[in-house]
Amino acid sequence: MATKAYRNQKTSRKSTHVANSLSNLPHLRIQGSARKSLGNVGFEEKHDTPTESPKEDIADKWRDIHGSSDWNNLLDPLNRLLRREIVKYGEFSQATYDAFDFDSLSEYCGSCKYNRHKLFEKLGLDKHGYNVSKYIYAMSHVEVPRWLEKSRVLENIWSKDSNWMGYVAVSDEKESKRIGRRDIVIAWRGTMAPSEWYEDLQRKLNPIGPHGEAKVEHGFLSIYTSKSDATRYNKSSASEQVMGEVKRLVQFYKEKGEEVSLTITGHSLGGALALLNAYEAASALPGLPISVMSFGAPRVGNIAFRDELHQKGVKILRVVVKQDLVPRMPGIVLNEGLQRFDDITGSLEWVYHHVGVELKVDVRSSPYLKHGFNLLGFHSVETYLHLVDGFHCSGSTFRSEARRDLALVNKACDMLVDELKIPHFWYQSANKGLERNAHGRWVKPKRDSEDIPSPIGEGNTLEPEMQNNLERLEALYGI
Amino acid sequence: MATKAYRNQKTSRKSTHVANSLSNLPHLRIQGSARKSLGNVGFEEKHDTPTESPKEDIADKWRDIHGSSDWNNLLDPLNRLLRREIVKYGEFSQATYDAFDFDSLSEYCGSCKYNRHKLFEKLGLDKHGYNVSKYIYAMSHVEVPRWLEKSRVLENIWSKDSNWMGYVAVSDEKESKRIGRRDIVIAWRGTMAPSEWYEDLQRKLNPIGPHGEAKVEHGFLSIYTSKSDATRYNKSSASEQVMGEVKRLVQFYKEKGEEVSLTITGHSLGGALALLNAYEAASALPGLPISVMSFGAPRVGNIAFRDELHQKGVKILRVVVKQDLVPRMPGIVLNEGLQRFDDITGSLEWVYHHVGVELKVDVRSSPYLKHGFNLLGFHSVETYLHLVDGFHCSGSTFRSEARRDLALVNKACDMLVDELKIPHFWYQSANKGLERNAHGRWVKPKRDSEDIPSPIGEGNTLEPEMQNNLERLEALYGI
Repeated sequence: MATKAYRNQKTSRKSTHVANSLSNLPHLRIQGSARKSLGNVGFEEKHDTPTESPKEDIADKWRDIHGSSDWNNLLDPLNRLLRREIVKYGEFSQATYDAFDFDSLSEYCGSCKYNRHKLFEKLGLDKHGYNVSKYIYAMSHVEVPRWLEKSRVLENIWSKDSNWMGYVAVSDEKESKRIGRRDIVIAWRGTMAPSEWYEDLQRKLNPIGPHGEAKVEHGFLSIYTSKSDATRYNKSSASEQVMGEVKRLVQFYKEKGEEVSLTITGHSLGGALALLNAYEAASALPGLPISVMSFGAPRVGNIAFRDELHQKGVKILRVVVKQDLVPRMPGIVLNEGLQRFDDITGSLEWVYHHVGVELKVDVRSSPYLKHGFNLLGFHSVETYLHLVDGFHCSGSTFRSEARRDLALVNKACDMLVDELKIPHFWYQSANKGLERNAHGRWVKPKRDSEDIPSPIGEGNTLEPEMQNNLERLEALYGI
Repeated sequence: MATKAYRNQKTSRKSTHVANSLSNLPHLRIQGSARKSLGNVGFEEKHDTPTESPKEDIADKWRDIHGSSDWNNLLDPLNRLLRREIVKYGEFSQATYDAFDFDSLSEYCGSCKYNRHKLFEKLGLDKHGYNVSKYIYAMSHVEVPRWLEKSRVLENIWSKDSNWMGYVAVSDEKESKRIGRRDIVIAWRGTMAPSEWYEDLQRKLNPIGPHGEAKVEHGFLSIYTSKSDATRYNKSSASEQVMGEVKRLVQFYKEKGEEVSLTITGHSLGGALALLNAYEAASALPGLPISVMSFGAPRVGNIAFRDELHQKGVKILRVVVKQDLVPRMPGIVLNEGLQRFDDITGSLEWVYHHVGVELKVDVRSSPYLKHGFNLLGFHSVETYLHLVDGFHCSGSTFRSEARRDLALVNKACDMLVDELKIPHFWYQSANKGLERNAHGRWVKPKRDSEDIPSPIGEGNTLEPEMQNNLERLEALYGI
């Protein structure tokens, strides 16, 4: 345990300055606020203040905030109402990591830790006023590290073929009133360790859609569309699962006379899947306002894919940290060089293109972050949300009125300056989920039957809810 | 988080066999026991069984078990009553790690996390029937990694000069009756990462005791005897603190007509300090039965030191894992070569010698442990206790009646075979000690005033108990 806590750090004039300022405070946690100067930015201890601005009604401007005019005049400077919505969708993306069971030794590895009715409550996200209507599962061999595939441990895990890939959620009455419509959110899970899937990217393009000109990266498409009768949770693909649910929900609310929007969000790989999802949804549900809010997403497809997305009216806002390498993938060097060539000829079908509108934020704008090279930290969702929270306009310093809890940045990385004394990678369960039983033995507790989304082993009966879902899937897809 | 869970592992015929056996069980946690064959050893799921054999009265044989006859005929095969006592003292040693605040970013880094009245309860060790009477602090620059010394973060920590180094505890009425005497235990904290202090060992010997012939390693002696008026907690040295308390307790119980024993225990560096402590205690309190139970301790001093310890009647039992490198320190190569030379001449004063009696256990005797190279795992206290629990006699296989909770092995290492599905390095607090305050912000909670062993910052008054301790120290040592 001691070795983990010891990390190399370079001292810098700035951190010395901060440390000297802080050394006047014997306690990190203090009553009220104490203003400390840090360059040009006031640095306040905000422990006793709320972490968000009050919610505001956006009903009369929701379409603009949803991107109907490509966020024209809303990004630089960043409109405060838009900022709030971006952070909301970012937290929905982060939830896909917080709830995912990463423990490769657990029999539940690859599943969501919580039942869908408890997901937001367990993660403190019920404040947003959405309810989860469905979980999405995808087949994903790119996510199973090669050593795990070869080991026998796989035989016992929850499912070696499918992983929990995200969820569909809907705004409740109160939130729908505030935002002026019923909002259906789809959040796709990415990977925190992009190198693992990046290595497996074949960097070859496959056609999508009816014309064959639009092409997207093979691996992303494979995750989105793979299915196999041999699996338990992917007899239907992720695509089929999510489209079935979206169509059902859109029909349900339209019949009630409500306005409906679809907002698809995701980080990293999840941002790529969000684009594929948006492409399909726009084809299946023309006229439905569809926006994508992605964070640190790589390029996904060729120029024809980009153009078709735009033609279908899909609005895409890509939030990008300047120092993050993932948005430059695939083909960092290749693309950079060819881009210039492509700009001239406009005819390279097989070059990857970004789509939509970019909001670029900069690690160096924040005095709370270390600026040194940190691949994982630059790519982390919480780094993104911290920088969005502090973003006023390009080139400006961090907003002094920013309220978001700084500690969140270090949930799954070590980006915060050490003077703030927030532990690194702090988001973790007590004793990795082990609990003491009646004899004092440390054991993995069984999940509540409600929290097992599907039965384990043979001979168990499906939970009634799952049985309903299964029957509905079967009815929809004739499986 | 994903990258941490992915570790390379070689598949082996044995683990394949175990995995195949386990794959018949959809649930890891099962009712009752299921016998699985694993080579020659029965492998049972024991979740619903107690973790220890029942306590037995040893009052009429306590001296032998305490080592009065050098554990003659008690080690091979290992006497079951002795086994139980060894594990008890091993758990006292492990407690010094479990309660230590390792978080270099915490203002309490270097202190004990708990007030001494709560220590055993918090760690589940009140079952042993001992009460902590005093905490020990030592100055230790070998423990502060060099990068930390150079950074400014040090200015805010609890104490940059002193670390919590262990405790003195006494058996209560019930336990004293069971074991036939009042037992005073001193547990010294070691380091889990031996390389850190090993690099700082100067490997030079300093004299100890009045004659100047007995010599011990400089660094160990420095930790044990350093003090400085400039510090808060080490105006007196660790040696002075502990000897003051031991003398006080011995006098107290002798005046009540009780038999008293002193048992000093420690792991790694703690085992070395235990020897220094034993040397001093035997000099100051001749006639007091003094035993040392050490785990993975390095060599400490020269042959004269060894001989003087033996002459003073100190009994030492060194528990050693065969594959652990630390007991071969300092001077692995040097000693090995010189030992043969020394055996011939018997006159090399400056060569490090082990003392006392050795109980050697072997990683390969356990089918529950990975046998591959694992420096930290071989050295871990919980590995030691697992192997002692399973030890019958040298060369025998793991005891099938061993009850100790297997999961404990993986508290701070990854020694258990993965088929057992116990997380690696699982002993950890939820969210690294952060908690949400009323505003939903993640903060380090302040410690209860009872849990702060000493005041932080200026102007605070000492807790009454600490004030008493301080006054007593001052009275004892005239500071």
